[in-house]
Amino acid sequence: MTSALLNPLVTRLSPPPIPAVQAWGKSYDGSLGPLIDLSQAVPGYPPHPDMLRWLGEAASSLAYTNYGAIEGETSLREAYAAHVSQVYGAKVGGGNIHITSGCNQAFMCAVMAVAAAGDTVLMSDPFYFNHETTLSMLGIETGFVACDSANGFVPTLEAVERALTPHVRALALVTPNNPTGAIYPPERLKAVFDICQKNGIWLILDETYRDFLPEGAGAPHFLLGEKNWQDNLIQLYSFSKSFCIPGHRLGALTAGENVVDEVAKIMDNLQICAPRAAQGAVARALPALIEWRAGNRHEIDLRAKALREVMKDLGGWKLEAIGAYFAFVRHPFESRSSTEVAEHLAKKAGILSIPGEYFGAKHTQFLRFAFANADAETIQQLRSRMVDFSL
Amino acid sequence: MTSALLNPLVTRLSPPPIPAVQAWGKSYDGSLGPLIDLSQAVPGYPPHPDMLRWLGEAASSLAYTNYGAIEGETSLREAYAAHVSQVYGAKVGGGNIHITSGCNQAFMCAVMAVAAAGDTVLMSDPFYFNHETTLSMLGIETGFVACDSANGFVPTLEAVERALTPHVRALALVTPNNPTGAIYPPERLKAVFDICQKNGIWLILDETYRDFLPEGAGAPHFLLGEKNWQDNLIQLYSFSKSFCIPGHRLGALTAGENVVDEVAKIMDNLQICAPRAAQGAVARALPALIEWRAGNRHEIDLRAKALREVMKDLGGWKLEAIGAYFAFVRHPFESRSSTEVAEHLAKKAGILSIPGEYFGAKHTQFLRFAFANADAETIQQLRSRMVDFSL
Repeated sequence: MTSALLNPLVTRLSPPPIPAVQAWGKSYDGSLGPLIDLSQAVPGYPPHPDMLRWLGEAASSLAYTNYGAIEGETSLREAYAAHVSQVYGAKVGGGNIHITSGCNQAFMCAVMAVAAAGDTVLMSDPFYFNHETTLSMLGIETGFVACDSANGFVPTLEAVERALTPHVRALALVTPNNPTGAIYPPERLKAVFDICQKNGIWLILDETYRDFLPEGAGAPHFLLGEKNWQDNLIQLYSFSKSFCIPGHRLGALTAGENVVDEVAKIMDNLQICAPRAAQGAVARALPALIEWRAGNRHEIDLRAKALREVMKDLGGWKLEAIGAYFAFVRHPFESRSSTEVAEHLAKKAGILSIPGEYFGAKHTQFLRFAFANADAETIQQLRSRMVDFSL
Repeated sequence: MTSALLNPLVTRLSPPPIPAVQAWGKSYDGSLGPLIDLSQAVPGYPPHPDMLRWLGEAASSLAYTNYGAIEGETSLREAYAAHVSQVYGAKVGGGNIHITSGCNQAFMCAVMAVAAAGDTVLMSDPFYFNHETTLSMLGIETGFVACDSANGFVPTLEAVERALTPHVRALALVTPNNPTGAIYPPERLKAVFDICQKNGIWLILDETYRDFLPEGAGAPHFLLGEKNWQDNLIQLYSFSKSFCIPGHRLGALTAGENVVDEVAKIMDNLQICAPRAAQGAVARALPALIEWRAGNRHEIDLRAKALREVMKDLGGWKLEAIGAYFAFVRHPFESRSSTEVAEHLAKKAGILSIPGEYFGAKHTQFLRFAFANADAETIQQLRSRMVDFSL
């Protein structure tokens, strides 16, 4: 008898980081008050009651029990296309939309549509860890566009040019950024897109957190209005954060119709179609809950303000970047790794955060705070817990 | 400006077959009565009313809005482990279960856990098309175990041995089979498993249709009771067919705990977790709807009987295999491809079926009938529609 072998591309991956971090929180004794969870991005307020009602109505309906269209429910594709058109001042149709089961899946579909094992995909460094592990397990090589605090963690054009090689098929960026929170300005995105067009590579733009851009920020970019955008752009989004329903797993990919056709082939193998009932519910919610989402944007602004205030006079701690959902915080323990700091901060101070090195080995001086998870009052409690914190 | 390239492993795939077949049905003029859809496997009866109620309750509950455990809800993992233990007379625990969003996803997770681009995975021929395209888009080479009508489409040990090469990492089989319906006997599965153990390869066993085995058929096999089964076996299942809820996308993978850990890494990238609300609902349904599912098994038996009866005296048509859900039917038009026959059968006779060649080029003399989709009365109407059918 011989045990069969596992895929080394998978066995070499570390275990998923979020459960490991959450396990630290379970060791906290509660002596400083309830655990403050700034780890996984989960808005700290509930979904709108109508959202729950619509989810329930759809899930209990016979209409959604059967298989649906691979690309997604027409109602949601159309509603989301109208929304995208409005947000970006562009003309996007339902045929440009593919619904997925969350934005991680949208990313996996996007990279599989454009790259095979042995090709290279570029990411920012720091990067969103699931993007790195997705590429890694598919045998796709990763290249990095260095982003540093001196530039507000926004990629420079020089850094992008420097990372290009003949094997590069795509550049994957996240804006507003995970982990740093950095908001990439529209003109920078346009210049990066020009580089992609010139070099015949894809720009994969994950905009999971765009609904949390500061109030009055305007369109995140104008790339969907560019001539032939369909030849070089794939845009990703998640309904999880905006509607507070990550457990229902819904995301979307916006691309040229020929890309949507290729993604449909991938999705057919990967799960046939995204779960249907939640699609029906979100199609109703998209136009109906505009004001509620605007209110949340305001609320997240207040939380950002509260964190800025807290971090002003916190000894060696330094807020290096803050944006739409996340902050990237420099910790004061120069000789200690971010994992050590985050573990102790969780166990002793009851503050869950993600170690910077999970987003790239270089970033061990940082912690990621998903500040939008906690209300302003809770964020104010960080001061007393952090000011005297030592390792 | 240079258009970016798409992944040739994906562009070379044919478009998903089911939508293409369903399009044929739209050209049928209804003159012989309503369309009889024997294409995609969808039980032709509704879910139990309690199932819909539980789905609605769970989806409208705040409890399932947040992210859940990657491996699945504990309630469902435990309930399903108990069910598996009972069905196979084995001891399987919740730690052996990974919940996925449908069985296609379970298959993709299983193959990614054990094979990378360049490795080889064996399938039966005829094969389930999504298994073939999944491997193909991942750059995994496919090898084939020839199954023929003379052996009731059950793989012989000689055919398995013949297909082995040093690059083979796994053998993927479907029993009861899709497309032929063939039910692989427990002793054959044991002998195939022995070959896998001897050669250090995985047996990936997709048992999506096991709940439709004929009444009194006993355990599908005893492999989960084999010593060290965890080192060579990964078993797959779908809740879609048994509970009539494919639109809710739920499947499961049963394997050793170390394999479950690797699958969790893959799933974290692929979609973080399967949709949660449906998991909660199915955890309730699994023990509660045992009698209802037994009734369905009886109903499917009646449908199989009706199809056998219909096919007895249908000119050149021949029922070459029939089992739990599917029948593999030889068409009488020797010089015509199965795609031509299926297309005309859909458009002119209002009978949707899947062309045999979709399951492998060799099988162009066959059509797959998902007979379990239609009740016995509807199946009886096949006679009048098929007896005079010509191309």
